[in-house]
Amino acid sequence: MTHFADRLAEAVRGKGTPLCVGLDPRFEMLPAEISERHEDRAAAYAEFCLRVLDIVAPLVGVVKPQSAFFEACGPAGFVALKKVIERARELKLLTILDAKRGDIASTAEAYAEAAFTAFAADALTVNPYLGRDSVEPLLKAARRSGRGIFVLVRTSNPGAGQFQDLMCDGRPVYHHVAEAVAAWGRENVGSCGDGDVGAVVGATHAKELVELRTALPNTWLLIPGYGAQGGSAADVAAAIRPDGLGAVINSSRGITFPLRPGDADWERQIEKATREASAALSSRR
Amino acid sequence: MTHFADRLAEAVRGKGTPLCVGLDPRFEMLPAEISERHEDRAAAYAEFCLRVLDIVAPLVGVVKPQSAFFEACGPAGFVALKKVIERARELKLLTILDAKRGDIASTAEAYAEAAFTAFAADALTVNPYLGRDSVEPLLKAARRSGRGIFVLVRTSNPGAGQFQDLMCDGRPVYHHVAEAVAAWGRENVGSCGDGDVGAVVGATHAKELVELRTALPNTWLLIPGYGAQGGSAADVAAAIRPDGLGAVINSSRGITFPLRPGDADWERQIEKATREASAALSSRR
Repeated sequence: MTHFADRLAEAVRGKGTPLCVGLDPRFEMLPAEISERHEDRAAAYAEFCLRVLDIVAPLVGVVKPQSAFFEACGPAGFVALKKVIERARELKLLTILDAKRGDIASTAEAYAEAAFTAFAADALTVNPYLGRDSVEPLLKAARRSGRGIFVLVRTSNPGAGQFQDLMCDGRPVYHHVAEAVAAWGRENVGSCGDGDVGAVVGATHAKELVELRTALPNTWLLIPGYGAQGGSAADVAAAIRPDGLGAVINSSRGITFPLRPGDADWERQIEKATREASAALSSRR
Repeated sequence: MTHFADRLAEAVRGKGTPLCVGLDPRFEMLPAEISERHEDRAAAYAEFCLRVLDIVAPLVGVVKPQSAFFEACGPAGFVALKKVIERARELKLLTILDAKRGDIASTAEAYAEAAFTAFAADALTVNPYLGRDSVEPLLKAARRSGRGIFVLVRTSNPGAGQFQDLMCDGRPVYHHVAEAVAAWGRENVGSCGDGDVGAVVGATHAKELVELRTALPNTWLLIPGYGAQGGSAADVAAAIRPDGLGAVINSSRGITFPLRPGDADWERQIEKATREASAALSSRR
């Protein structure tokens, strides 16, 4: 069984880019070719995402489906989500299920079963507000099969600071969370030297990103907010270690929706957007 | 359209109890009669929960399905969850979907669509770590149809204090969250005088419960941890206002699993446990 951090390192090194493609399907932004053919929104999401996976699989090592958009379709959405993750795995892509789960004890175990067994994702994003006994059951489950978790530390949204930046003992709350993330990660280190507990850190906060890269040298950072949310390649470059590892940089809308719904060459546009995002990240290092 | 707080007040007043029955199905704890009949775990969960609903509907006004246990079954689990919520609504029970969601902007809107439209719950539990712009889209969606949200303030688990109790400006983090909850609730007050943003406060912290009851006089409190998790009727009585309103007291395992799987009279046992939990709450007021 390969350690999660080693699998991540392999995924990033194998494709030569830390870029992660986010799968956040929105019906009104789908290519008309797809949305017009499906009565069922979930089926349209599945087709779109499967086709995106085929396009990006040669170019990136990691993808991140956003659970919420599938959930919005009800039960059929979960059928689609499962298909998308299955196909990603067939294509040897590492999958991060972005669901920001967090609950206690046996409930956390059920979320772990959902993420790692029922939907078979390689990693899950986790909300730390409930504290250690909400994170540890997920981590324990992840470790049974070389999976990992990414804990929200400092998120990319404008209101993130409302609670995350409250100052406690001279440091913001998110530093306390970062410290816990580092401690959890040290419990189980891969041969690459990194732990299996990552940190979600928004690309829209360049200063915090530099600070957390330094504070968490052996923690993989998952950086959302690159592209459409406003984080630039220069901003996120600070998250990537000199060895080219240690960070996964996510772009969702910037890659999967560079198009107008009527565009017939949408697959080429997605390929182009992926290559450009990847090149922009390389040129900044 | 009736305001969410008025609907809650009606549900509690109508059955004369603040008791809420939590639906946290676990396969190994189901009555043998049900688990032996179903190959499919999700179908067993659906049957069990539907039968529990029929038993408790005359006795309580509110039920709380825990999403995680359904999610653990994969897509079929969501079919079961949808059926359970539908049946609860047919029985005029108010439903709180316990999913502790939290994400930003359009992702939060998708979670709102999932909870209030796809699964048609009356309320959703929400994790506040991402700050105001993760809560407000859920609230905005809830307000379109007389729904509500319950924001995690101080949870019932042993490790809850790791981040929630960090001291910021002389007050723990959870006080800052409570203050935000009160402010959100004041934006939209029902004719009962209460807002449509509730607070989740664990029954296992009696001191915090008293303190938060005082700090949040017009906020509905959702109190998990009564019964199996160790909160006593005396502990939770402090959350109930003199008018008998303002709190929903949840018991899950204590009510739905008072049984050994082989017990043939499990329905009677669940009815008895519900009546006893309800009576214990009344006698403390």
